[in-house]
Amino acid sequence: MNHYPSSIRKVINNLNKLPGIGLKTAERLAMHLLSAPESEVLELSRNIGELKKTIRLCSQCFALTDSDLCRICSNPSRDNALICVVENQADMVAVEKSGAFTGVYHILQGLLSPMDNVGPDDIRIKELLTKIEKGNVREVVIATGTNVEGEATASYISDCLNRFTVNITRIASGVPMGGELKYVDQVTLKKAMEARHAL
Amino acid sequence: MNHYPSSIRKVINNLNKLPGIGLKTAERLAMHLLSAPESEVLELSRNIGELKKTIRLCSQCFALTDSDLCRICSNPSRDNALICVVENQADMVAVEKSGAFTGVYHILQGLLSPMDNVGPDDIRIKELLTKIEKGNVREVVIATGTNVEGEATASYISDCLNRFTVNITRIASGVPMGGELKYVDQVTLKKAMEARHAL
Repeated sequence: MNHYPSSIRKVINNLNKLPGIGLKTAERLAMHLLSAPESEVLELSRNIGELKKTIRLCSQCFALTDSDLCRICSNPSRDNALICVVENQADMVAVEKSGAFTGVYHILQGLLSPMDNVGPDDIRIKELLTKIEKGNVREVVIATGTNVEGEATASYISDCLNRFTVNITRIASGVPMGGELKYVDQVTLKKAMEARHAL
Repeated sequence: MNHYPSSIRKVINNLNKLPGIGLKTAERLAMHLLSAPESEVLELSRNIGELKKTIRLCSQCFALTDSDLCRICSNPSRDNALICVVENQADMVAVEKSGAFTGVYHILQGLLSPMDNVGPDDIRIKELLTKIEKGNVREVVIATGTNVEGEATASYISDCLNRFTVNITRIASGVPMGGELKYVDQVTLKKAMEARHAL
């Protein structure tokens, strides 16, 4: 690292802190930035600098947004009576990309995880209940992950919602599309077998 | 991409232009930046913005530096009579890291490549000759890569230097340390065999 002038070293250090960017990659990126057009580099710098300033959470669904309501909550053609509960923004984006959902979202901003001291009050479950209490919600699709925390959170939320007259559903588990059975783990295959349906 | 607010989208686009950073990685990095401490993000932004402003080429060896002479050329304990010729800054750093070189460098800023219209006048060969002409140079180690362009450039420089009374050497080729012979390509193995030495 001492082999670089200090301004390059600083950028390498900063980049090296990002997830998945090792020292070698950070060096390569810094070298690229040095040879890239100045306007491009300044644009990157400016946009990173402004990122945190403009971003906040949607007051309704807690998605990241740069206005009070996110693009989905403020879209009148989305079905407000259908709520999809996800762990975070990235999961929301994944569901959106699938194009299979026309309702609105509720982003928990985390999952229940007693090991990490994350309880029901640490994620946005209360806000979900408040939304349901107001009525007008027909169905809640719980789309948390299928890992331990995701399943536990799904089951906790399901218990909480039982006292309301709302349909509670969970996204299906099974063999991923395009997957070969021999590469699928046993638990998934068991789930897929149990949830088999008529053709 | 439309699933993100515009300020996140901009950062994703910028990051996506960097080498080796695909859309998924760019998304992940942008999400990380949103959750990282503000000071860290602003520091990254500032250092990237200032990178191009402070960096120039060393007037002696053409390494990247933030002063007139680079750290190596301005170090009185380096041997100025021993010059290592490399393609670029990254190669110089690689040689420096090896700790095996105590002289100074000459960074060509490229390699001869007729296919890409890069001739002897497009890289810093003239400047190398000027340095040698002044005398006081004992040895020139040509440490360009061992690919076609690297070998061609090495041989061209060697021809140019023949008229001077200077030792011209080339870094050794052979089996990389820690390498198993069965994984080494034929050309390397041939080179290694030809260059075998007494033990």
